[in-house]
Amino acid sequence: MKIFIAAVAPVAAVTWLAAQSAPRPAPAQDSGLIRGFSRTSSAVELARERELKAMPTAKAAEADFDVMTAEPHHTGSPYEIKLADYVSDQFKKIGIESTKYEYSVLLPWPKQRRIDIVAPDQVRLEVEEEKIRGDQWADKPGILPAYNAYSPSGDVTGEIVYVNFGVPADYETLDRLGISVKGKIVLARYGGSWRGIKPKVAAEHGAIACIIYSDPHEDGYFQGDVYPDGPFRGWGMIQRGSVMDMPRYPGDPSTPDRPSKPGVERIPMDKIETFAPIPVQPMSYRDGVELLKRLQGPVAPEAWRGALPITYRIGPGPAKVHMNLQMDYGQRRLINVVGKITGSVAPDEWIIVGSHRDAWTFGASDSVSGHVSMMAVARAMSEMMKKGWKPRRSVLFISWDGEEQGLLGSTEWVEDLTAELKAKAAIYVNRDAGAGGLDFSGSAVHSLTPFVHELAQAIAPEGTGKTLYDGWLGRSRDQAPAREGQPMLKTPPVGALGSGSDYTAFLDHVGIASMDMGLNGRGGDGSYHSTYDNPTWFKKYIDPHFTFSVLASQVTGVALLRLADAEVLPFDYETYGQQILEYIGEIEQQAAKASPDGAKTVDFAGLRSAAQAFATAGADVRGRSQSLLGESPSSAALAEINHRLIMAERDLIEPAGLPDRPWYRHVVYAPGLYTGYGVKTIPGVREAVDAGNYTRAAEQAAIVIRALQRATRTLWP
Amino acid sequence: MKIFIAAVAPVAAVTWLAAQSAPRPAPAQDSGLIRGFSRTSSAVELARERELKAMPTAKAAEADFDVMTAEPHHTGSPYEIKLADYVSDQFKKIGIESTKYEYSVLLPWPKQRRIDIVAPDQVRLEVEEEKIRGDQWADKPGILPAYNAYSPSGDVTGEIVYVNFGVPADYETLDRLGISVKGKIVLARYGGSWRGIKPKVAAEHGAIACIIYSDPHEDGYFQGDVYPDGPFRGWGMIQRGSVMDMPRYPGDPSTPDRPSKPGVERIPMDKIETFAPIPVQPMSYRDGVELLKRLQGPVAPEAWRGALPITYRIGPGPAKVHMNLQMDYGQRRLINVVGKITGSVAPDEWIIVGSHRDAWTFGASDSVSGHVSMMAVARAMSEMMKKGWKPRRSVLFISWDGEEQGLLGSTEWVEDLTAELKAKAAIYVNRDAGAGGLDFSGSAVHSLTPFVHELAQAIAPEGTGKTLYDGWLGRSRDQAPAREGQPMLKTPPVGALGSGSDYTAFLDHVGIASMDMGLNGRGGDGSYHSTYDNPTWFKKYIDPHFTFSVLASQVTGVALLRLADAEVLPFDYETYGQQILEYIGEIEQQAAKASPDGAKTVDFAGLRSAAQAFATAGADVRGRSQSLLGESPSSAALAEINHRLIMAERDLIEPAGLPDRPWYRHVVYAPGLYTGYGVKTIPGVREAVDAGNYTRAAEQAAIVIRALQRATRTLWP
Repeated sequence: MKIFIAAVAPVAAVTWLAAQSAPRPAPAQDSGLIRGFSRTSSAVELARERELKAMPTAKAAEADFDVMTAEPHHTGSPYEIKLADYVSDQFKKIGIESTKYEYSVLLPWPKQRRIDIVAPDQVRLEVEEEKIRGDQWADKPGILPAYNAYSPSGDVTGEIVYVNFGVPADYETLDRLGISVKGKIVLARYGGSWRGIKPKVAAEHGAIACIIYSDPHEDGYFQGDVYPDGPFRGWGMIQRGSVMDMPRYPGDPSTPDRPSKPGVERIPMDKIETFAPIPVQPMSYRDGVELLKRLQGPVAPEAWRGALPITYRIGPGPAKVHMNLQMDYGQRRLINVVGKITGSVAPDEWIIVGSHRDAWTFGASDSVSGHVSMMAVARAMSEMMKKGWKPRRSVLFISWDGEEQGLLGSTEWVEDLTAELKAKAAIYVNRDAGAGGLDFSGSAVHSLTPFVHELAQAIAPEGTGKTLYDGWLGRSRDQAPAREGQPMLKTPPVGALGSGSDYTAFLDHVGIASMDMGLNGRGGDGSYHSTYDNPTWFKKYIDPHFTFSVLASQVTGVALLRLADAEVLPFDYETYGQQILEYIGEIEQQAAKASPDGAKTVDFAGLRSAAQAFATAGADVRGRSQSLLGESPSSAALAEINHRLIMAERDLIEPAGLPDRPWYRHVVYAPGLYTGYGVKTIPGVREAVDAGNYTRAAEQAAIVIRALQRATRTLWP
Repeated sequence: MKIFIAAVAPVAAVTWLAAQSAPRPAPAQDSGLIRGFSRTSSAVELARERELKAMPTAKAAEADFDVMTAEPHHTGSPYEIKLADYVSDQFKKIGIESTKYEYSVLLPWPKQRRIDIVAPDQVRLEVEEEKIRGDQWADKPGILPAYNAYSPSGDVTGEIVYVNFGVPADYETLDRLGISVKGKIVLARYGGSWRGIKPKVAAEHGAIACIIYSDPHEDGYFQGDVYPDGPFRGWGMIQRGSVMDMPRYPGDPSTPDRPSKPGVERIPMDKIETFAPIPVQPMSYRDGVELLKRLQGPVAPEAWRGALPITYRIGPGPAKVHMNLQMDYGQRRLINVVGKITGSVAPDEWIIVGSHRDAWTFGASDSVSGHVSMMAVARAMSEMMKKGWKPRRSVLFISWDGEEQGLLGSTEWVEDLTAELKAKAAIYVNRDAGAGGLDFSGSAVHSLTPFVHELAQAIAPEGTGKTLYDGWLGRSRDQAPAREGQPMLKTPPVGALGSGSDYTAFLDHVGIASMDMGLNGRGGDGSYHSTYDNPTWFKKYIDPHFTFSVLASQVTGVALLRLADAEVLPFDYETYGQQILEYIGEIEQQAAKASPDGAKTVDFAGLRSAAQAFATAGADVRGRSQSLLGESPSSAALAEINHRLIMAERDLIEPAGLPDRPWYRHVVYAPGLYTGYGVKTIPGVREAVDAGNYTRAAEQAAIVIRALQRATRTLWP
């Protein structure tokens, strides 16, 4: 599904900015030396990267793309099952061991979706996505109609209240205006948070249903020309998407913590807690404007107004709507395909890359474009193996299913193989929508910050005369101009991982270092989750010559090659520790402001000292690695240090999990309960402080301190 | 014309904020004591204010309003000349001496205005203002068509470039994008600056013509329901307005510094420097969207995008326009009407109130609503005189003509009576559009800051349970929320006076303390300068029961009564001096940042010490006044101190005027050369620093120091 939030939630922004001021090792390196490689092996590695970068071709990318996008292929659909065979056959054809992992997951498809305005006049809304002239893909049979997955069925009638993005702050504004949504149907626009937050918060305030429409301000004509004249969202295009309560747990709602295999215990429908609490339906702005223009009540605050040519008002009513949604909940086939190259030196250190194969419709951008780049790397590595190369570590290429509905494929697989992953997984590299322009961005556990910077420095797209890093830094500086008296950004921000793609179970449930990256900039969000994320749109506006697809393969390939072949894994725990120190500082400041007495009960000094010790151990282990690399180390010595580097991340898992959501177990990262995609760092403490619960904050701080102490011992015993 | 700028220029905003942090006498007063009055006379004054506040009635206001708005009455039109008689007769009827001052001014009326899109297709634009269903006023004969006064005639063809607000910062953005307006026709939206800046800056960058359209973002449906469903600007409504280069000099362009009377020397047409340099035409958004939607080129930056349902692009072209504007420049009759009550104690201390009678069309809000409140005060004072009261000072009520085209009436009159005004004028109180809601705001020379605060505290509109001051402070705090670590606003900001209404010649040319005030909040800007600023619109949306008109009369009346009867004029020069110190600090900071070496050549220390001495003298004279008031002073002692208070303002006039615009002579206030309405404080120094001209800044600083020293000596010899 990839992250797409037009208006970033304030907390995320604060975190993001704070992440900038940390003292951090300068990214510039000794030119001949690659992080984790000795001088000799660096030279070999550089030559091999050049070789690999030359292999992916636009022609091969397009051929793969054309197969993958030929039919609608949502999870459980005939073509998605066919594509599992296609991917598996591709692996086999190039000599890579392939295994299918099949699960049976609880998945709703839409049956009836009818919405009528019943007051002040009678209007039947379109509900269906528009068929746009000159695009033949909309006529294909088998397209899943626009709906929000894991909405309950429901037949409700109520007045409309416009709630802006529908995040908690918006309800504070409504309170101030004296407007209640109790018994009403809320109309929220997409953006500002992950969509699943909207019905959740609406229901908490007493709403009986939720409609989410795409305002042209976020990804329509306000941003640029709309399809078919440009890449952006037109009047009749609809964003599908899941509204499962993923911040509680992702994956099959009936099997938290366990794989959805035959015989496993399943929660009955009426006991499941991750369904949306009220009926939810997405809508185009063609339909949305019909509701908005029938609202009276106060004019919406300026920040609430979108780009439709009307006066935005809040209501309630007079627009009143009858909404009848009937969902077909059933068990569907879900198939992940895993291709594996076994490592030559450290076969039980796994470098895993994954990309989702399933799509809401054709998935040209989301995520075939990423999947194609992953497969291109598999082909390139296979070619290199024919010439005698073998990776030091094992490399696993995974084609995920069921990502769109709630990270089903990756979650069930991680829950299935937990023990083996705990023992073997060194890192998970995610590739979601992946060939959308020259604008590189990366998110990762913060031990990987320097690695991601150096990766971006290693790639200079043809014809641009600069590296991906240069562009990334420039854009970051434009977006966060130096304030008076402050220096400019020194390095581009490597974001913290929240949720919204398949790294979630790896990082948050098991403690496997993870990274995600994107290449954007060509307006690829404009057809997000619509029928028009299809080959015609993609080839016309996003990647006509498949140059970005080739670029994506190069970035992914260099990342995997470095991770697979580095003598010492390129994790920098000092950077990680320093970043944690900053997060602690943020939370302490917030607590001190909100409740000086409460703040005193939380052991911030202990947190700081634990994080400082963790950072120091990180510096020590980095020093040790660097000297090891200088002295032709034994493989035993390398294995030992790599083991420590892998396992320190595992120590940041608290077995009992976070309060009220035990599936999430990482003490540093989790998606925010009320932000969804947006990360909450040190979530146990931060969300307790957010909620003013200082008893809990104190308990959670103790848990974080213990986790950091465990990891410190592992790093530098 | 009143001030109407949707997006405030940054410099103005900075000034405005800076004005907040000054230490300033707390506005709360000894409850029984009114500034400038002894305890005994305070009690009398309070009783008299109660009496006066009870006199204005809605019925009388509406009757006066109905006469004043019955026909279009732009300067030189038959009905405007008739209204001069009406006002004069009103004065006479109530026993107030009335004098007409007539001038003959150079004034253009529109002849031909035709605009055709000639590429990429052929479209003739509407150009004329729309006739809106259900409003019979648009059918009245004699409405001046929509045009920009003092545009030259011209017949040009060129490609369109969209330039946002068309202020200097927008051209910096265009430069970065590599887009030139040379030889092009620029399309600017209203807002962001005074409209006359738009053609001026466009011409400086080589444009051959300028179209200014009203974007619905500023005063159309983005803000609220549009006429006839609400007060805001609809698709076909057009904002007329002057584009004279008023920051150079206002008034008749052919007679700077002299009154436009028979025999006076007039500059020939081709030598006049205050005409717009290129043809300019205003436009509705109905026409504007036709141009915008035909633009290609880069998508406009987000801050440039308005609320039309299109993708805003910059161009140039392909939209190409043929524009033929033919103006009819001629001499027109201009008549000011002055009503005078001669003071009983100090007849040669003049308290002047003025409001413009002329309008672009019917002028219901702008400025009949203000004019009505002035006339109501004249009636109330006349009633009071029948009961035996006489003002201590003389009160002059002035009905201005020709304000809309460029402050013609007030400028010519001040130029006519300069010597007498220099000797006698104590203060000028301006009343422009004046009955638009409960939201009070005031601007004034900063010696009047406490007076304006106290005035707002003296009026508590019926049914609101709070004073105008309470609402003003609340809104000010909402608009400038306290930043972290900073205290909340203590008092609402009394703005510095820029230009845009009839106080300009009084303050900036002669050095007469001035104040302006407004009552807004009901969407009164929506019909600004259109055909729909008419009785139907006003009575439906702005002041249906004429309660705000009554309120405006009460505010104006109390202000005049206090000024006319105070034993000591309520000027606080300490506050003034402290504010000047802040302005100096701002400029010094800016200079130090832009050029540390340049800043050193400017005598900021001398400026500070002169301003400090001025403030100290202000405190001294206030102390002296207060003890005088306690000791039954002689009228000679009062006359002496009042003379000092009046003349200190005159000392802030530099006879040579500002660089390149000698008409503007005040060393503290002037409209910005590139902001128009927006004030530049300490303009000589500030604009030199803005321009990086430190030689000039140093010279100007010396001038300001000398002026402050003169004023200090006058205050406290």
